[in-house]
Amino acid sequence: MAGRPFDLLNDSLGKEVLVILKMGRQVRGVLLAFDVHMNLVVDDAELTEQDGTVKKLGRILVRGDTVVIVAPSQ
Amino acid sequence: MAGRPFDLLNDSLGKEVLVILKMGRQVRGVLLAFDVHMNLVVDDAELTEQDGTVKKLGRILVRGDTVVIVAPSQ
Amino acid sequence: MAGRPFDLLNDSLGKEVLVILKMGRQVRGVLLAFDVHMNLVVDDAELTEQDGTVKKLGRILVRGDTVVIVAPSQ
Amino acid sequence: MAGRPFDLLNDSLGKEVLVILKMGRQVRGVLLAFDVHMNLVVDDAELTEQDGTVKKLGRILVRGDTVVIVAPSQ
Amino acid sequence: MAGRPFDLLNDSLGKEVLVILKMGRQVRGVLLAFDVHMNLVVDDAELTEQDGTVKKLGRILVRGDTVVIVAPSQ
Amino acid sequence: MAGRPFDLLNDSLGKEVLVILKMGRQVRGVLLAFDVHMNLVVDDAELTEQDGTVKKLGRILVRGDTVVIVAPSQ
Amino acid sequence: MAGRPFDLLNDSLGKEVLVILKMGRQVRGVLLAFDVHMNLVVDDAELTEQDGTVKKLGRILVRGDTVVIVAPSQ
Repeated sequence: MAGRPFDLLNDSLGKEVLVILKMGRQVRGVLLAFDVHMNLVVDDAELTEQDGTVKKLGRILVRGDTVVIVAPSQ
Repeated sequence: MAGRPFDLLNDSLGKEVLVILKMGRQVRGVLLAFDVHMNLVVDDAELTEQDGTVKKLGRILVRGDTVVIVAPSQ
Repeated sequence: MAGRPFDLLNDSLGKEVLVILKMGRQVRGVLLAFDVHMNLVVDDAELTEQDGTVKKLGRILVRGDTVVIVAPSQ
Repeated sequence: MAGRPFDLLNDSLGKEVLVILKMGRQVRGVLLAFDVHMNLVVDDAELTEQDGTVKKLGRILVRGDTVVIVAPSQ
Repeated sequence: MAGRPFDLLNDSLGKEVLVILKMGRQVRGVLLAFDVHMNLVVDDAELTEQDGTVKKLGRILVRGDTVVIVAPSQ
Repeated sequence: MAGRPFDLLNDSLGKEVLVILKMGRQVRGVLLAFDVHMNLVVDDAELTEQDGTVKKLGRILVRGDTVVIVAPSQ
Repeated sequence: MAGRPFDLLNDSLGKEVLVILKMGRQVRGVLLAFDVHMNLVVDDAELTEQDGTVKKLGRILVRGDTVVIVAPSQ
């Protein structure tokens, strides 16, 4: 129970995640990589803008300091 | 009385916490892990958006620099 | 007179403080602990939101980088 | 699958990328260089402002801490 | 003339200062202490909120990263 | 092609650049100097405010952490 | 031409400067001192608020991380 927070990222590699970003954006896709800054590579990424617009972006790099929450799909 | 602030996180492992985030969001769930950056893993997480919308997100990683307050349930 | 700013926190342990936070929130309660990042543990904490709503939160951790002012009760 | 996030930047050198910036701006162009701070050089850069205005800027330096997402063209 | 900026804080110990904070707040009082982060202790502090409301707060700690300007009384 | 981002600043010394800043400001002028923080000296600088007002400022120092994009004139 | 940005501050000691700050404030006065964080001491300082209000503040300390531009008078 008292593991490290980044274990959750490690356990989510290859799985679908929802990434909630600052300023009301969110990204849904498959987590491919992460680093200590919480920079993420997400594949088949679908970006939802604050106004609800959705863009399919393929494989993307998300900068760690814009992340609020990473939620692996249940 | 003069313990360290992170002792409160340690004492809250496995218990329900309310996490108040910047920009008016908050998360309620069971604290599973934390690190020195205040990154948190919260289980059975329920996210309340600024507009009151509630989303059940399961087990999530909350980035430490978005945290304002962590309040263990009384 | 030329002490260090954190002496004021040390002198306030066990006493009531008002903590003014960024974004218009404030917390009132008893200061139980602090660290070099100005992370605080406040007991019997009463959080006042920007819109005036008050919540009793019990014992909480306040993240240091959200603090603007700590005012011990006079 | 568990590579490092910056591998995606390395693989995108010489290719077209979409760079989403904080505050609603975005840049489209060819990625020429990057560093550990995610500072980017983008060639044939087309900047779209938040209000939809488009400017052709040629070869530009984008400061890393303003980046939200880098999406190589699919 | 080419002294160090913190000399001005040192010269102001025990004297009245006006501290202008981010987000439109300001504090007036007697400077009692400061550190390298520009954390300040101000005595007989009077806080003016952005909307003009004034609160007498006594002896307070002001977090350095919220400071914009420190102006010793002339 | 895989040079370092700051090479673009080095190649732009003595040439006209457009510097886009956070909060909607921009500066046009001749780049005279830069450092690792992306602090810039710009000569014959013309500052355009968010509301379109233009000010001629001569030789100025631009703080690096306010920079979004540096675009050498084509 | 390829000097260091802080040379401009050094050359401006004892001269009038315009300091443009984040959030629309600006300060005009004589530069007396600076440090590596771009903290500045400005004498005979005149602060112009975002709404155009002007305050004469005498000798002040300006915190470096609120600075956008320093423009020595021409």
